Amino acid sequence: MSDHPISRFLVPEIDSLPEDIKERVLAMQEKAGFVPNVFLVLAHRSEEFRAFFAYHDALMEKDGNLTKAEREMIVVATSNANSCQYCVIAHGAVLRIRAKNPLVADQVAINYLKADITPRQKAMLDFAMQVSMDSETVTEEDFDILRGHGFTDEDIWDIAGITAFFGMSNRMANVTSMRPNDEFYTMGR
Amino acid sequence: MSDHPISRFLVPEIDSLPEDIKERVLAMQEKAGFVPNVFLVLAHRSEEFRAFFAYHDALMEKDGNLTKAEREMIVVATSNANSCQYCVIAHGAVLRIRAKNPLVADQVAINYLKADITPRQKAMLDFAMQVSMDSETVTEEDFDILRGHGFTDEDIWDIAGITAFFGMSNRMANVTSMRPNDEFYTMGR
Amino acid sequence: MSDHPISRFLVPEIDSLPEDIKERVLAMQEKAGFVPNVFLVLAHRSEEFRAFFAYHDALMEKDGNLTKAEREMIVVATSNANSCQYCVIAHGAVLRIRAKNPLVADQVAINYLKADITPRQKAMLDFAMQVSMDSETVTEEDFDILRGHGFTDEDIWDIAGITAFFGMSNRMANVTSMRPNDEFYTMGR
Amino acid sequence: MSDHPISRFLVPEIDSLPEDIKERVLAMQEKAGFVPNVFLVLAHRSEEFRAFFAYHDALMEKDGNLTKAEREMIVVATSNANSCQYCVIAHGAVLRIRAKNPLVADQVAINYLKADITPRQKAMLDFAMQVSMDSETVTEEDFDILRGHGFTDEDIWDIAGITAFFGMSNRMANVTSMRPNDEFYTMGR
Amino acid sequence: MSDHPISRFLVPEIDSLPEDIKERVLAMQEKAGFVPNVFLVLAHRSEEFRAFFAYHDALMEKDGNLTKAEREMIVVATSNANSCQYCVIAHGAVLRIRAKNPLVADQVAINYLKADITPRQKAMLDFAMQVSMDSETVTEEDFDILRGHGFTDEDIWDIAGITAFFGMSNRMANVTSMRPNDEFYTMGR
Amino acid sequence: MSDHPISRFLVPEIDSLPEDIKERVLAMQEKAGFVPNVFLVLAHRSEEFRAFFAYHDALMEKDGNLTKAEREMIVVATSNANSCQYCVIAHGAVLRIRAKNPLVADQVAINYLKADITPRQKAMLDFAMQVSMDSETVTEEDFDILRGHGFTDEDIWDIAGITAFFGMSNRMANVTSMRPNDEFYTMGR
Repeated sequence: MSDHPISRFLVPEIDSLPEDIKERVLAMQEKAGFVPNVFLVLAHRSEEFRAFFAYHDALMEKDGNLTKAEREMIVVATSNANSCQYCVIAHGAVLRIRAKNPLVADQVAINYLKADITPRQKAMLDFAMQVSMDSETVTEEDFDILRGHGFTDEDIWDIAGITAFFGMSNRMANVTSMRPNDEFYTMGR
Repeated sequence: MSDHPISRFLVPEIDSLPEDIKERVLAMQEKAGFVPNVFLVLAHRSEEFRAFFAYHDALMEKDGNLTKAEREMIVVATSNANSCQYCVIAHGAVLRIRAKNPLVADQVAINYLKADITPRQKAMLDFAMQVSMDSETVTEEDFDILRGHGFTDEDIWDIAGITAFFGMSNRMANVTSMRPNDEFYTMGR
Repeated sequence: MSDHPISRFLVPEIDSLPEDIKERVLAMQEKAGFVPNVFLVLAHRSEEFRAFFAYHDALMEKDGNLTKAEREMIVVATSNANSCQYCVIAHGAVLRIRAKNPLVADQVAINYLKADITPRQKAMLDFAMQVSMDSETVTEEDFDILRGHGFTDEDIWDIAGITAFFGMSNRMANVTSMRPNDEFYTMGR
Repeated sequence: MSDHPISRFLVPEIDSLPEDIKERVLAMQEKAGFVPNVFLVLAHRSEEFRAFFAYHDALMEKDGNLTKAEREMIVVATSNANSCQYCVIAHGAVLRIRAKNPLVADQVAINYLKADITPRQKAMLDFAMQVSMDSETVTEEDFDILRGHGFTDEDIWDIAGITAFFGMSNRMANVTSMRPNDEFYTMGR
Repeated sequence: MSDHPISRFLVPEIDSLPEDIKERVLAMQEKAGFVPNVFLVLAHRSEEFRAFFAYHDALMEKDGNLTKAEREMIVVATSNANSCQYCVIAHGAVLRIRAKNPLVADQVAINYLKADITPRQKAMLDFAMQVSMDSETVTEEDFDILRGHGFTDEDIWDIAGITAFFGMSNRMANVTSMRPNDEFYTMGR
Repeated sequence: MSDHPISRFLVPEIDSLPEDIKERVLAMQEKAGFVPNVFLVLAHRSEEFRAFFAYHDALMEKDGNLTKAEREMIVVATSNANSCQYCVIAHGAVLRIRAKNPLVADQVAINYLKADITPRQKAMLDFAMQVSMDSETVTEEDFDILRGHGFTDEDIWDIAGITAFFGMSNRMANVTSMRPNDEFYTMGR
């Protein structure tokens, strides 16, 4: 583990965490082989931690027409537009794994218009970027474009929800100066 | 009640809601005299509803050095920058009530630099706007400016958290085309 | 009356004003029940005052296909984009009264795309915003879109003229730190 | 005279103009040797014409600490930022003549930071550009900077007024597609 | 010659230059009657000088469907968007001469949409501006628009190459504070 | 090798290249183990190829106070701001190797303010970003800030030159849709 600080704020010891949070952290550690820093940085506030991950799971673990890789594409594309180091690097790793594609994360982060993805996925990311940057301009015509690519209204809510949630996450990561774990950089390459 | 749709998505009947959500909605109705549309629009998705309001309460109902009126100022200023009709109008009403000041909400929405607020509150809103628009530029110097106005690091987390959370909320309100209740326009004037 | 200053510059006493300006101010006071601050703030310079209000009347009191409420919509939408507190609040009041609609001013100020207005009025405001923000991009195609909504070329001049005039007014209000009268906040609600 | 149209709107014959407007146009023709197109294009509307030129004269012909060349610098710098062909070319000509300097107009139009002007004039143009682009950010500190360069508050009003007036003029010239007279291109070179 | 410095960096004496650079400079002097400052300012670094002018000639002196005047239009339009005094003034002069048109350079610099040029040339400049400002958004559809105006793919490379090269040149001119020679202001008028 | 096209334009066979270009390409292949696509894509035009790489070498292979890793940092940071997939991925690889640091390239690309680099390097990248985005605002004060970090004027020219050159390169890569070689993604990790 790097000796750089992972947050501008105090980071709790795992043993000092409330039981439910500690359990979630340890489960994650078991699964990934390490504790992603977002768990430790946000554990600074227990109530917000619980709400954050409940929201995260509601959007990222739910069923629907978006694949798990597609959900991660939304995170990666919008997080680079928000210059969020943690989210691009951590979710880039997850995207590589979910998509079983070692190239797609960097491509989507830098310029999704030139990534090896489908036209439907580009339309999805066009909308995500609009929601992230100019959500006030969303009109019925934007819904129609997505419907033309086979997205249902529930899918559109998913795209918007993931974009909006990670827009929040990007801002918290930027303000806390949340550091991505070194492990993420090479996962799935 | 206006006959305009309050969402682009299906809005559930209150009676059809899961018990815990129904309870929260009815409690709100009892308190406000009407059901703010955000409850009905977001009740379209139960899991996300629960996480959204848990997060909301963790940030807006907690103790700390920010007054309730100040928390609402953050919401109103950043929501107008995001052109979010629901949040400016609904939280403008709450701000007027919390601040016992019928003018401050419109002032803060349009240009907080000219609002009848303190220099400390302007510094708070400078930071909130930076987090909302350019969070990647936040550095230690920005923390120092806030500390110079008496804000603790926990207060800074609060400002950032409220800004980030309502940035998410603004995007969901814009995509769903969430309509503010007519009642909000005149509350606290 | 609030004890906040209404201008960064010296504000003349009404009795010290040139006769014609004094007459206009008193007539306004008679009509509105108070003197809108723009009259006092701009009376700092008599020549400019006369030209300003002559221009104002030529655009706002003239006949044509734009209703008086529509003219005010242009003012309110573009003034919020210019973050002009005086113009949004004062003309918001006039808009509510002209439109006999207590909601429309706040809606148009925050995001006219979601306001309770007609598609023709949205096209009018699309053009007004373009003139306000990017007038160099106006081409014949923009005229054609407006003509498609039934606007004549004279109407288009009106939209442009009102937008341009209040763009000037917004800048003067921002530089003078012109304060809206407290009365405006509740008129027409 | 070029055979390109000088406006998107009807341009009146000089002989058909109201007597006072005709007089002003002919006086201008006598002075300049030709009729600047702004007179003909705006004569499309008599009331607005009168108010426009009354305002213009109140700002540009008045006494004060700004030289006539400095007033033109403000017009040229802000008009290029607004991509207004008529104003840059016509007022560029006037600036060359007023400043007795054949280079300064092009320099100020393209990048006033590199023009052969004084630090005081650069501060004046910094403020004019701020008023033109971001007038909502003007605060007391901006006034102090200008005072530090010897500008009085009346001078600051002049800078703001000229900027705001020509911002209006730029928008009208862009919407009407007002064409600069060929004569302007070489005057004062 | 003006006594203003022509660069923030040391400018070599012509006699001290390497033979090949000296030859090029003197040939230019012979042709133009003076040495354009870009030759002296960039001669500060011999290797870069040689590469710069080799690149310049490869793009500007080559055959193809773009006329020499059209190549200069690209330079003038994009250089004003980059606020590059040297390039607008020097290449404005060349454009006037190449196009045998004393008006077109100022028109294209300020707002090419209103210049006396063909629709094909406007499409060329639309693309050049996109490459200059937002090259990441270029897609196959942009190529198709240009093909619809009769441009070949080689022409499109030329437009992009000239835009990209002068984007580099603009940045070097801005950082070195490269001064246009006084002679350029009146050439071709 | 991936079967995706590496350019929107025709890509020459290596054997068909002029001898000097073929030599350079083969030398590169020998050194890297593969031919970076920029060589093949730009070989579409021999003259421009030669000038491009001469310029590249003059800036990147020269002596000076900037280390080779620092030169690559400039490329990576500004190329992500320009959304240039080829340059971020290819030069990211070179940066990891030059800096002997597997993390720094992704950090610098996404947000150099949070990268594991020195304050002096952050000042260097602040300036590079200013040259890339707003070169018209560069003034003597920016030079002074860099001098305060120990940079000489020649170093400043280097920073500006590298930024400007790769700004050109980014635009050509975006227009040609230049594809990064798969090999780059994992080099130096």
